[in-house]
Amino acid sequence: MKAIPLLLMGCGGVGRQLLRHIASCRSLHAKQGIHLRVVGIADSRSLVVPSNVSTGELSDELLSEVCRLKSDSGFSLSDLPGLGESRAYLGAESTSKMMEIAALLGKSTGLVVVDCSASSETVNILTQVVDLGCCIVLANKKPLTSSLESYDKLMSFPRRIRHESTVGAGLPVIVSLNRVISSGDPVNHITGSLSGTLGYVMSGIEDGKPLSEVVKAAKSLGYTEPDPRDDLSGMDVARKALILARLLGRRITMDSIEVESLYPPEMGPDVMSVEEFLSKGIVLLDKKIQERAASASTFAMVLRYVCVIDQNKCKVGIREVPKSSPLGRLRGSDNLVEIYTRCYNTEPLVIQGAGAGNDTTAAGVLADILDVQDLIP
Amino acid sequence: MKAIPLLLMGCGGVGRQLLRHIASCRSLHAKQGIHLRVVGIADSRSLVVPSNVSTGELSDELLSEVCRLKSDSGFSLSDLPGLGESRAYLGAESTSKMMEIAALLGKSTGLVVVDCSASSETVNILTQVVDLGCCIVLANKKPLTSSLESYDKLMSFPRRIRHESTVGAGLPVIVSLNRVISSGDPVNHITGSLSGTLGYVMSGIEDGKPLSEVVKAAKSLGYTEPDPRDDLSGMDVARKALILARLLGRRITMDSIEVESLYPPEMGPDVMSVEEFLSKGIVLLDKKIQERAASASTFAMVLRYVCVIDQNKCKVGIREVPKSSPLGRLRGSDNLVEIYTRCYNTEPLVIQGAGAGNDTTAAGVLADILDVQDLIP
Repeated sequence: MKAIPLLLMGCGGVGRQLLRHIASCRSLHAKQGIHLRVVGIADSRSLVVPSNVSTGELSDELLSEVCRLKSDSGFSLSDLPGLGESRAYLGAESTSKMMEIAALLGKSTGLVVVDCSASSETVNILTQVVDLGCCIVLANKKPLTSSLESYDKLMSFPRRIRHESTVGAGLPVIVSLNRVISSGDPVNHITGSLSGTLGYVMSGIEDGKPLSEVVKAAKSLGYTEPDPRDDLSGMDVARKALILARLLGRRITMDSIEVESLYPPEMGPDVMSVEEFLSKGIVLLDKKIQERAASASTFAMVLRYVCVIDQNKCKVGIREVPKSSPLGRLRGSDNLVEIYTRCYNTEPLVIQGAGAGNDTTAAGVLADILDVQDLIP
Repeated sequence: MKAIPLLLMGCGGVGRQLLRHIASCRSLHAKQGIHLRVVGIADSRSLVVPSNVSTGELSDELLSEVCRLKSDSGFSLSDLPGLGESRAYLGAESTSKMMEIAALLGKSTGLVVVDCSASSETVNILTQVVDLGCCIVLANKKPLTSSLESYDKLMSFPRRIRHESTVGAGLPVIVSLNRVISSGDPVNHITGSLSGTLGYVMSGIEDGKPLSEVVKAAKSLGYTEPDPRDDLSGMDVARKALILARLLGRRITMDSIEVESLYPPEMGPDVMSVEEFLSKGIVLLDKKIQERAASASTFAMVLRYVCVIDQNKCKVGIREVPKSSPLGRLRGSDNLVEIYTRCYNTEPLVIQGAGAGNDTTAAGVLADILDVQDLIP
């Protein structure tokens, strides 16, 4: 049995779901000769580790207790009752303990450091553990979308990093793109609908519904962030686009991406509250987008909120696509990525499916962890 | 620079394209710190190796010469002019030399044995090299669709075998399915259109064209085998379905798959020639399938030639699918696979794109070769 040691940062919905998946896959993984040994769980303030990180592990009971207690967002790991053989570290001590573990286990065991947080703070830890021989698995987009210097550092051992769930949750987008690239099939361009929320919104607009109505419906279905403008700004899609563009070798940063926001600056969070935006602001946007949709429709086109990436541009915004293309036929909240290459020339390689949700995101992270197993001695 | 030694069986269209890809990707792979060292090329009768397989390799000039000369199907590798430092082995000697190389390089270098043939003979070699520490990459479906005993043997070290191009050419079907499985997301069922030819035919029928006309058009476009009944029998799709079913853990063989042939036994190759079939036979089949399509259409369904795989059945044949489903919206010769799991429940995970062609098939093989690099010491 090969033990894969892992240290998890982030106990939000994805991190907790990952812990549940790990526990429930014990017998499946045992059949593959694999045991996932959890040697640390960190939230933003604290870290829990077994008393002996070289040989010990956090028990499945403790993982399940973490899941139960952390669903209350105010709870800190350091308050975990019944720690038993485990220990907790707080604040700066938790970071230095993590580095100590990475130094101890990196080269000797290929420790997998998993980032399921949504923080921009973890990049400092991640760029350091790279040199300590650790593998890295990310659901967090931030480390890959900050400076090019950090990006290069994280990618310095490309086989030791996996980040499927940073784009399209568990959808096999990154693995597919990496296969295309490594087989020498040159990518012409990538077009994708990478926001379930905006996919749902554009479907509704195609059906003739006003933007304001569709957004309110999406919010009440739980498809949007608490402030729907966080989706409508396009910034989340832009981060995903940047990750894809960098995989294609583009040396760009967030500020060089052209992002079309679905609301104007005068309706931004600094100017009006969510309630104001939904009751008074957004209705003012209905007419223009309805006109755009109608005009597109006369040319057998539909509007989609997409990223378009090629060797010269990286754009995020509304675009007319042929009704009969894979993107044009997309309905509802599924994500869809079209990859055009020499081999997939007139008809693209298409990956489609649910691109959000803790369950599928955590499944993507788990598949990534198993995918680095050959690097573990 | 890490050298990945490889031995290629099969110099048909896919094998030759692979050799071209290898030569043209030299600088791309060098950037990744990888060098593909070709230590043997075999056709059905002979084997060419460098004079020293431990350190030497067949030069890119020789690879290109192999590609040029083998496009004449009558040419044997042993007749290769200007072998230089290389050597040729014939018949039984070529097999024993291959085993000798596998024994020498398997455990020490993780030699990758690549099967791009369409032969059922290679399975004997492949099941032996498994125990010698070799990695295996397959485009050939036959080794995975013969006895369960051979299958189990080939899969005895699951990390050391890749076979993306056995289903859907270079489409990332196997890698995606393996990720789903390893993350513990239970697969409910898989439905797929896995024949470009039959996809094209069913699209034509959907457009109201007679079967006979569409098949003749497909033949003249080069979409079919020389005898189109090789496509219409569904046996190629059945092989792909068996590979997917076995990945899901089904313990079945070819003879337990229900296969619907598009022509009846009395129009088989033993009864009439290709010309007779195309001029007199197939027109007799037009009416029935046209009626089926019309009847499906009244329920907003379309006919597709698909495989359906779940825990209880593995079927290949014509099926009515909703016009609005990914399979129903499929047009032309693209392949499409729908994977339904816990995470992809109401809306499936969909992989779509060109599923045939030497270029994309060889690209899939090359991506597989690079994917086992972490097993090479």
